[in-house]
Amino acid sequence: MSELRWHPFLEEWVVTATHRQDRTYHPADEHCPLCPTVPGGPMTEAPFQDYDLIVFENRFPALQLDPAEPGVLGTALSPVCPSEGVCEVVCYSSRHDATLASLPLLQTRKLVRVWRDRTLSLGALDEVAYVFVFENRGKEVGVTLSHPHGQIYGFPFVPSVPSRTLAAEDDHWKRTGRSLLDDWLEEETAAETRIVARHSEFVTVCPVFARYPYESWIVPTGPWTSLADLGPEGLDSLAEAVHSISQAYERLFDAPLPLMMALHQAPTDGVARPWTRLRVEFLPLRRTREKLKYLAGVESAAGNFLTDTLPEECAVRLRSALASR
Amino acid sequence: MSELRWHPFLEEWVVTATHRQDRTYHPADEHCPLCPTVPGGPMTEAPFQDYDLIVFENRFPALQLDPAEPGVLGTALSPVCPSEGVCEVVCYSSRHDATLASLPLLQTRKLVRVWRDRTLSLGALDEVAYVFVFENRGKEVGVTLSHPHGQIYGFPFVPSVPSRTLAAEDDHWKRTGRSLLDDWLEEETAAETRIVARHSEFVTVCPVFARYPYESWIVPTGPWTSLADLGPEGLDSLAEAVHSISQAYERLFDAPLPLMMALHQAPTDGVARPWTRLRVEFLPLRRTREKLKYLAGVESAAGNFLTDTLPEECAVRLRSALASR
Repeated sequence: MSELRWHPFLEEWVVTATHRQDRTYHPADEHCPLCPTVPGGPMTEAPFQDYDLIVFENRFPALQLDPAEPGVLGTALSPVCPSEGVCEVVCYSSRHDATLASLPLLQTRKLVRVWRDRTLSLGALDEVAYVFVFENRGKEVGVTLSHPHGQIYGFPFVPSVPSRTLAAEDDHWKRTGRSLLDDWLEEETAAETRIVARHSEFVTVCPVFARYPYESWIVPTGPWTSLADLGPEGLDSLAEAVHSISQAYERLFDAPLPLMMALHQAPTDGVARPWTRLRVEFLPLRRTREKLKYLAGVESAAGNFLTDTLPEECAVRLRSALASR
Repeated sequence: MSELRWHPFLEEWVVTATHRQDRTYHPADEHCPLCPTVPGGPMTEAPFQDYDLIVFENRFPALQLDPAEPGVLGTALSPVCPSEGVCEVVCYSSRHDATLASLPLLQTRKLVRVWRDRTLSLGALDEVAYVFVFENRGKEVGVTLSHPHGQIYGFPFVPSVPSRTLAAEDDHWKRTGRSLLDDWLEEETAAETRIVARHSEFVTVCPVFARYPYESWIVPTGPWTSLADLGPEGLDSLAEAVHSISQAYERLFDAPLPLMMALHQAPTDGVARPWTRLRVEFLPLRRTREKLKYLAGVESAAGNFLTDTLPEECAVRLRSALASR
């Protein structure tokens, strides 16, 4: 059973998906459902002896193109809808112990092309209003399969965080006629201190308003609103930026760094938003080698972040992690 | 160093507090800083041989009445301000191994009176716009001191979540002339299935739009906007509701239940909001006895919750946990 329920106090959709309670949970390495199928062994999600990079539908999808009718009736204040949409899994490599950082740059070049391809394909569906590309990395983030993979959700609505960001960008554009991200990147470029890396068409920055420890954003220097706007050079530059910051995060502590990677881009609902910008956010959950960052009462229930790491200092450490290659 | 930095894309404040990086972290029981001071031993936060219930300023405050000047300059898009405000700690008992559920109801009656007293005192300060009462419970939520305690923040702004809720309530009131919470409670009362417990002046409900597993809200049957509006009967009824749902959560799994408890109430900025309502939210982080709920990419980066537990079923289990006493 999966359905969308409206939260009238937060004005956002909640996705119930009870079948996900039984999803595959930390299987032993030899039973990894994302590894290639071993001849004579049980069929995995990858019915091949080897593969390069694959995308397939999530076996426990929160959103589906042909969802069941909701199991409860909605009310006037809390309407309930079928959970239309798409949930896909992207395996970065057939190697079980690989990571985005350890793969050759060529593999990341392919990956960003997969992201773009899926954005175009899913975005063309009537059921999809927003294509969200992301990765949960590390068991501390709740990852239940350790094989290197990311996810792509085709949401039937614009999710809550991008929706708030788009409202702020729209507001800024109405007031100034400019893109909020362009203006902010100008400020960061002038300040210089929080820039982590420059690539031909993207810049990696620890934003002055970072919420997570070592948070960084990969942002474009051109007016690109989504992956759809990127040509081969732009895609290669994005791949280089993703590859290089991923390596910096692996080197930062001598311990795996749990994090979320999230690609925000323009909705696919057909409305033109020339003032929004594509960006990739990296949201790590470790504040020191030993200590995790928890999102507790202040962050989760009040909604404001407490951070004990300064982005100015995080940028210095990330730059030196990059230089140490 | 502590300061407020404006996040222009989410339009919310981020609180940097670097001195919190060194805060007391999982001390051994015999070095608990919240236990009474042992004669001849080191002074704890409680310089008495015993105490009933105490409130004191957090030794590692994110907000302070006399904050230092910010260490960075703000920009046009991301202004930086001193982090004015108050952070207090409330110890529920001198007993190190107590919990809110295991304490006598009388202690909870005292506790809600402390909450009210602090709401009035902190709310009267010019520096404070919102009094947020909460508890982080369990090391899975990031609690670093196991002694039973909650916290009270006097924020210099209305935090992000209550601010969004207030906007939705204001909007509903402008459209209908009614309180959103009153209308929603009418719907839940008619449906009946998600009501967990009724007390003289409060009702405990698993909301139809619950985001967390076993999430429940304690909401008033009268037009109370904050703790300040409650008389002795209302406070006793609230204490009974808090006490009883806390016991239900302790019995739900044979394992400690990590959760956040958050009291939302009207801001103290002097603006009248007769349409808002006081409520206490319980946000558990365990979806089965063995499995934790993680807020990963979809919840944290996209902002919409996936939930694999239905509030209808959670209410049944919480009612039977209550009946099993």
